[in-house]
Amino acid sequence: MQTPFRKIVIFGVGLIGGSFALALRKANAVGEVVGFGRRESALREALQLGVIDRIGQSEAEEVRDADLVLLATPVGQMAEIMRRIAPHLGESTLLTDAGSTKSDVVAAARENLGVALSRFVPAHPIAGAEKSGAAAALADLYQGRKVVLTPLPENTPAALARVRFAWEQCGATVSELSAGQHDRVFAAVSHLPHLLSFALVHDIAQKSERDLLLSFAAGGFRDFTRIAASSPEMWRDICLANREALLQELDSYRAELDRLRVALASADAEKLETIFAVAREVRCRWQADESGKEK
Amino acid sequence: MQTPFRKIVIFGVGLIGGSFALALRKANAVGEVVGFGRRESALREALQLGVIDRIGQSEAEEVRDADLVLLATPVGQMAEIMRRIAPHLGESTLLTDAGSTKSDVVAAARENLGVALSRFVPAHPIAGAEKSGAAAALADLYQGRKVVLTPLPENTPAALARVRFAWEQCGATVSELSAGQHDRVFAAVSHLPHLLSFALVHDIAQKSERDLLLSFAAGGFRDFTRIAASSPEMWRDICLANREALLQELDSYRAELDRLRVALASADAEKLETIFAVAREVRCRWQADESGKEK
Repeated sequence: MQTPFRKIVIFGVGLIGGSFALALRKANAVGEVVGFGRRESALREALQLGVIDRIGQSEAEEVRDADLVLLATPVGQMAEIMRRIAPHLGESTLLTDAGSTKSDVVAAARENLGVALSRFVPAHPIAGAEKSGAAAALADLYQGRKVVLTPLPENTPAALARVRFAWEQCGATVSELSAGQHDRVFAAVSHLPHLLSFALVHDIAQKSERDLLLSFAAGGFRDFTRIAASSPEMWRDICLANREALLQELDSYRAELDRLRVALASADAEKLETIFAVAREVRCRWQADESGKEK
Repeated sequence: MQTPFRKIVIFGVGLIGGSFALALRKANAVGEVVGFGRRESALREALQLGVIDRIGQSEAEEVRDADLVLLATPVGQMAEIMRRIAPHLGESTLLTDAGSTKSDVVAAARENLGVALSRFVPAHPIAGAEKSGAAAALADLYQGRKVVLTPLPENTPAALARVRFAWEQCGATVSELSAGQHDRVFAAVSHLPHLLSFALVHDIAQKSERDLLLSFAAGGFRDFTRIAASSPEMWRDICLANREALLQELDSYRAELDRLRVALASADAEKLETIFAVAREVRCRWQADESGKEK
């Protein structure tokens, strides 16, 4: 039987970290939430909005008696935070993160967390929005969403169960993958689509007729490019962090486009229709499965 | 001052043709609507739903006294319909179409319409949905949407004005491009995104881990691939009909991906961020412009 967390420390009180705080509070699963972050204004906003109870002053002192530390900063900043807080973590303080890539976060943890490594359970909440910042945080952001844990061999069953409990209290459906598996999966279904969407808009942006083109863009363009409005810094970091898996997916996709080009150039109607039909069937089945899960 | 159409004949009473009929009826802009189509069941459904008033029996007789003929079939069928009805068209019967490509429809019209060519004003309503068929038809499908006319040099001002009136009565905002311009624009902002979306889902569908991958696909994948649920037959035809312009756009995009791959492989953070930032800015500005227009 899991009990509420007495005190949680969150690094990065934006959409992801802020929603974690709000969700646990709503579930009566946390006593006090202390926030750290690079921008003072963001911390003050989070405080004013009631997302956090206090702005942390000393990392060393705050993590000493924390039940749980959440790293909700960009992945690129996590290694340095781990390095700074590792010597000060309480003996039973647990850690989790919210990074979109996992192999690199695990590598950073192995390098920097020392004995606390067994208490770090990496996590990736599959939730996001174009909006960012504490003002966009929602208590139900994780409701019904997936959270993937990529436990380490070093994790104790108790640590794993407790971190799982935290994410479940946020309303998420928690599953487990290896870090490598996780990164391959998300390269294919998330990182590559983002790259392709950015690429399409950038390609159009370079054309002399771009204003004419955009004036006739409609619903298909809108949906296809919605994710091209995502944060450039965040996606730069994700692409670099998951570079190897992403390159592999990108090359697989480029080969697919090469085949499509041949079919198109040779007016191979049957080949085109087959490709489209397979895609449509898989997409429709996926949609049906997703709708089924929501019920 | 334009008066209502006494009688309109529609070839293809699905989503596009059916919505045209319902919209004109709602605007009190049409007396009688007669439908033709390849599938008897579709015609009966359209009749039962009140989308059309009658199922046509003789094309020759029905087009003789029609004010307006709308070709709302797949583009691939239009040439043959034009060939069949051309000898029977009344002297003042106007024609328009709803094809997603225009150079090929114009070529078919030049080949098949004879003296009626001056009364054919090609049109492309920028409206669609994943659903198809008369049951999906809506009186307000074109409300606030764009319709692009690609008038021919042969069109009389009166014919152009009257066809424009028909689409405006549907609630659409009507603009004009040349057929070539139209096809370049839609290759870039519509046909290529569809091709890319089909390609992504097809690529994933070929992988041995595909079920695992799809089980973690989320919002980004959903939006990016919504258009991969579109009709394979329709998109096969569009891709073939607009092959030259689409190949050009596809090659431009593949070159863009090649550049992105270099940036990614060399971990060029600045280059990646710049590409993403330009894309984001253009996408956000487009969205803001679109929202502005809707007000």
